[in-house]
Amino acid sequence: MNSQHSAAVQDFYPEDFAHCYGCGSLNAHGLRIKTYVEGEETVARFVPLAHHTAIPGFVYGGLIASLIDCHSMATAAAAAERAAGRKIGEAPAPRFVTAALHVSFLQPTPLGPELTLRSHVQSFSPRKVVVVTELSAAGKTTATGEVIAVPIPGTMASRR
Amino acid sequence: MNSQHSAAVQDFYPEDFAHCYGCGSLNAHGLRIKTYVEGEETVARFVPLAHHTAIPGFVYGGLIASLIDCHSMATAAAAAERAAGRKIGEAPAPRFVTAALHVSFLQPTPLGPELTLRSHVQSFSPRKVVVVTELSAAGKTTATGEVIAVPIPGTMASRR
Repeated sequence: MNSQHSAAVQDFYPEDFAHCYGCGSLNAHGLRIKTYVEGEETVARFVPLAHHTAIPGFVYGGLIASLIDCHSMATAAAAAERAAGRKIGEAPAPRFVTAALHVSFLQPTPLGPELTLRSHVQSFSPRKVVVVTELSAAGKTTATGEVIAVPIPGTMASRR
Repeated sequence: MNSQHSAAVQDFYPEDFAHCYGCGSLNAHGLRIKTYVEGEETVARFVPLAHHTAIPGFVYGGLIASLIDCHSMATAAAAAERAAGRKIGEAPAPRFVTAALHVSFLQPTPLGPELTLRSHVQSFSPRKVVVVTELSAAGKTTATGEVIAVPIPGTMASRR
């Protein structure tokens, strides 16, 4: 972790919500995506593994969708914390879930370079956060995302 | 494989295109999604593993996006084969890639039951196929997908 960064949002999800395949610190098989607040934006970086391929030489679109999904939920959580006047790490991060996920694949994403996801909140209310993301590889934007995040419903939070 | 089914579309992708994390028969780490033609629809079935979780008890949204993605590409391939007057298995299946992926998460998807994806082609042209999918678990539709598939560009097909 870069010392310039804030702590990762996902590190402050309550333990019950830390099993996510995409971003749960407690999922041994998962991707462990980490989201950092940088000013008005959030940033996540990820180096795909060799088997995260679609066509040889290019990143699998489902991985890109997964990265955008989890990073957007953490971006929504960071926005909610900011709205509450808190910084990441001062309290457990609120857990949002995805109501809708849209990914545009602008050009093939090369497999090899680190991927960078930069997101901002397009609209915020406590019940609905819209997050917009640009995903880039080797300096080129290869995919964009627009994700609707909503607070975790009671039906999900109560099931163990 | 159920004998009522046709052969899986993915089994007829050329070997160069059979490494996809989602549906490549040659990706040892992947999901190996299989798509079957049933009349006017296509169907895929998948049982998530325990680590394919979001919140405990529920399926990870990125996995749902991945299933919809690969199943939609195979549905586009099947539509192209039908348009060419061929059945799946009579020739190598054409490889489509995803231009845009939209997933609506209608309700949480329980982790445990087999997931069923049923898709149909909403519009078809040789250069652009729109595929609509319903994903269900235990008889309830929990997510829908709308995916734009395009034939694999030369820039992807030529890179090895």
